[in-house]
Amino acid sequence: MTRIKFQQSLEDLKENLLVMAGLAEQAIQRAIEAYRTRDLSICDLVSRSEIAINRMERDVDQTALDLLAMEQPMATDLRFILSVIKINADLERVGDSAKSISDRVRQMEQLPSAELPVDIPRMATLASDMVRKSLQSFIDANAELARSVLTMDDAVDAMNRTAYKTLTKVMEEQPHLAPQALNALMISRNLERVADHATNIAEDVIFWVQGADVRHHKSVMAREKSQQAAPSSSSAD
Amino acid sequence: MTRIKFQQSLEDLKENLLVMAGLAEQAIQRAIEAYRTRDLSICDLVSRSEIAINRMERDVDQTALDLLAMEQPMATDLRFILSVIKINADLERVGDSAKSISDRVRQMEQLPSAELPVDIPRMATLASDMVRKSLQSFIDANAELARSVLTMDDAVDAMNRTAYKTLTKVMEEQPHLAPQALNALMISRNLERVADHATNIAEDVIFWVQGADVRHHKSVMAREKSQQAAPSSSSAD
Repeated sequence: MTRIKFQQSLEDLKENLLVMAGLAEQAIQRAIEAYRTRDLSICDLVSRSEIAINRMERDVDQTALDLLAMEQPMATDLRFILSVIKINADLERVGDSAKSISDRVRQMEQLPSAELPVDIPRMATLASDMVRKSLQSFIDANAELARSVLTMDDAVDAMNRTAYKTLTKVMEEQPHLAPQALNALMISRNLERVADHATNIAEDVIFWVQGADVRHHKSVMAREKSQQAAPSSSSAD
Repeated sequence: MTRIKFQQSLEDLKENLLVMAGLAEQAIQRAIEAYRTRDLSICDLVSRSEIAINRMERDVDQTALDLLAMEQPMATDLRFILSVIKINADLERVGDSAKSISDRVRQMEQLPSAELPVDIPRMATLASDMVRKSLQSFIDANAELARSVLTMDDAVDAMNRTAYKTLTKVMEEQPHLAPQALNALMISRNLERVADHATNIAEDVIFWVQGADVRHHKSVMAREKSQQAAPSSSSAD
């Protein structure tokens, strides 16, 4: 393969990953639309997306593997291809979260509707923004933008912790609403997970662009801080 | 690098991954021990393991990347190194699950103790067995053994679904136990996730040994079946 052809193959790989990203983003948006409207036909769309996403994941992986095997790329190209493989896995898991959310919506639909003290759409908007920004940072090879995604993760974590507290209170005080509250809690949990995947993607972009491994730096710093304070029990995992 | 030296480097990489695997397995075992005994000093050990696991993940990744960059391996060797990178990421997430479980134990310790209708230790044993078998299949390059892990996943999924149902009932009927039941449910959820990571590892082993991509085959088959039946709402994600 000539150098120009190889560069073209890398561009094609990037394009395929962006198609994959589009499917994953759409799946999350649809799942939240289903939550807002309780429209089960949208849940069916999400289930179908998941199948398409899984197929696309295999295609992207295979293409990346072929490029590694045939071209034996070095340095930045190698890091780029490895990043694609990792981002691909995270996008597939975003698709899984969308499917989990839509499964929850199906269950909620069978229960009496209830006003719950949790703003799922707002949390979903934030998590989706993170996915979109992390992908934009990938498209632009922009480590600065990728870094901004890492800081957004704290806000989603905080929202998830708040949801956990308020929904536990609902369960204690209005036990007949426990199933609904639990479904909402699981949806919140899935959105927090989507934000984690966006964070992973942003870290992979930084790894690719700068060659620096930023993983766990934040969590290590957080732990050092929390070890100075009281033992942390803030996780809502 | 000579061929012999390269083979030695691959062996070293495998050894490092097995150290990583040992840390992850131990973290899960400790987290469940903490659950059984409510001994918070074990929770501290789990937190410390997580830091070690995160550091080890970076080391293994860097070694794998260096081998890819310097040696430009082909065919089976390339697939092996890519499998190591993926298994490494799954093991890191097993460590995350152990940490989440121990965070839950910390919360439970602050609540009145309660008999809950869920057998967490049994579920943990099954999930740990899956991790151990998936790693054994990696050590022995045994695709047959890896396939047996895939079938075990259904049992853990079923246990998680049962836990979800029985614990929701506890919340409805004994609302003062809602916080405890919720913690138990989250622990069940984390064990189900550990089983998923074992499944991913088994799939990576099959990919490496046989060059076949088995991901999602099971879920596609399951979906085809469920589309013939009623719409599924069995997920407890």
